[in-house]
Amino acid sequence: MTNESVLRAVDDDARRQAGSLLRTGRSAALATLEPATGMPLASRIAIAPDFDGAPVFLISRLSPHFAALEASPGCSILVGEPGRGDPLAHPRMTVVGEAGILVDDAHRAIARHRFLGRHPKAALYVDFADFAFWKMNVQRASLNAGFGKAYALTADDVLMDLSEATSLIEISCDTVDHMNRDHADVVALFATKLLGQPSGAWRIASLDSAGMDLTDGDVVRRFWFERPVPSGEDLRELLVTLAGKARQIAG
Amino acid sequence: MTNESVLRAVDDDARRQAGSLLRTGRSAALATLEPATGMPLASRIAIAPDFDGAPVFLISRLSPHFAALEASPGCSILVGEPGRGDPLAHPRMTVVGEAGILVDDAHRAIARHRFLGRHPKAALYVDFADFAFWKMNVQRASLNAGFGKAYALTADDVLMDLSEATSLIEISCDTVDHMNRDHADVVALFATKLLGQPSGAWRIASLDSAGMDLTDGDVVRRFWFERPVPSGEDLRELLVTLAGKARQIAG
Repeated sequence: MTNESVLRAVDDDARRQAGSLLRTGRSAALATLEPATGMPLASRIAIAPDFDGAPVFLISRLSPHFAALEASPGCSILVGEPGRGDPLAHPRMTVVGEAGILVDDAHRAIARHRFLGRHPKAALYVDFADFAFWKMNVQRASLNAGFGKAYALTADDVLMDLSEATSLIEISCDTVDHMNRDHADVVALFATKLLGQPSGAWRIASLDSAGMDLTDGDVVRRFWFERPVPSGEDLRELLVTLAGKARQIAG
Repeated sequence: MTNESVLRAVDDDARRQAGSLLRTGRSAALATLEPATGMPLASRIAIAPDFDGAPVFLISRLSPHFAALEASPGCSILVGEPGRGDPLAHPRMTVVGEAGILVDDAHRAIARHRFLGRHPKAALYVDFADFAFWKMNVQRASLNAGFGKAYALTADDVLMDLSEATSLIEISCDTVDHMNRDHADVVALFATKLLGQPSGAWRIASLDSAGMDLTDGDVVRRFWFERPVPSGEDLRELLVTLAGKARQIAG
C-alpha cells in the first residue's frame, strides 16, 4: 500500500512486531464506507485478538460502523498507540480485510472470553441483543515501524497457523481462568520478572500457542514463548517452567 | 452518522468539547479510499488545528494516503486519545470533509507555524519537496463523548467564525514566538496555574481568538478565553491580564 521504493523486505522481526501490535492493542481506528455517501469513516472500536491474532470487536447495531459493515464488509483497522513525543515515531499498522459477524457458538464463546479478558467492563453489555462480535478476515497489512521502516505484509505474515492448535484453543480459556484465580502470584511474577513491568493488578488476558498476553487493565503486554507449543499439555508444562524461571529471577 | 434515536441535542458544551478535541489532538486516524481497490484505509497522521480549528496535516507523496487523497479528497479523521481504562469511555470525534493541499503562501506559513508548534521535530522534513500541508474543509462531525452521549455536529458547530479575526491571525504567530522567547516564565504559569498542569517544558503551540494551546511536547492542553478577542491589541491586553492572574494564583 506504500510506494514500493520505500518498502523493506519482510523478515521475522517485522512479523513479530506485527503480531505484537495486533495482540497488545486495546482499541483501534476502524475505517468503513458510509452507506449513504460512500465516504470513508474513521471510528474507534475496542478490540481483542482472536486465537490466530485476527482482530475481533464488539459493536452495537446502534453505531454507524455496524450499519456500514453490514452494507460493505471491506474495512481496515489501525493499531498501535502514538504515545509520548513524536506521534509518527511509534509503530502502527493498517490491517485490511473483510469483517463478518461471529455466528458459530463455540468460536463466539472463545472470542467473548478473550475480549472480556481485555475489557472486563464490557461484561455489562456484551450479552445485550443489539451487540455482536465481529471478526476481521485479514487479507493484508501495512506495518510502519517508524520513519523509513515500512513493510507490506500478507495475512500469513501477521496471523498464526492454527492447523496444529485445535486442542490448545479448546483449553486456553480455562487455563487463563485457572491461572488468574489460583496462581495470581505467578501471574504477577510473569509480568514483573519475565516482562519487566511495574507491579500492578496483572492478569492473563489470553493465551495462545505462541505466547501470553498480560494486562493490568490499562495496557496489554505480550510474552512470546521461545517456540510455539502444540498441545494443552505442552502449554501447562511450559507455564510451570516459566513460573520456576520467574521465581528464580525474583530470588 | 449515528442512529438518530441515540443522538443528543447539540449545546455549547458539546461544541466546546468538539473544539477542544480538534485543538488538543496531536495525531489522528485518517480514513481515505484506496485508489486501486476502493477499500477504506485507516492510517496515522500528525495534525494541528488551523486558526479556525480545521485539521491541518503534513504528509509525504511517498505515503499511500497522499495518493488516496489526490484521487479522492473525501475523507474523515478520528481525534481523541483512548487513554487509561475503558477505551470507549474517552471522548472522540469523527470529522468528515474534503482535504486539499494548502497552496496559498500566507496561509501555508501560518499552518506551518502552528504545526511546528506542536511537532517541532517535523522541522527536519517540513520543507522537503515531497511533503505538503493539507487542510480538511470540514463538512460535519460526529462527537461521541462516552456511552450514550453522541452528537451530530455541523461545520459551524466545530469551527470558529473568522469574519472578525483577520488582524489577529496576522499577528498570532509572532505573538506566540514572543511569548515563548521572552516570557517563558509566564507561559509556565499559564500551564501550571491557569490549567493546573504539572510543571514541564511548556510552550504556547498556537493562539487564536478564543483561546491558547499549550504543549509540553507530549500533550496539548487548551485554555479557553472567557470570550473571544477581536483584535491583536485585545489579545495582548488579555495575555497581560492572564499573566497577572496566574502570578496571583502562584502567590
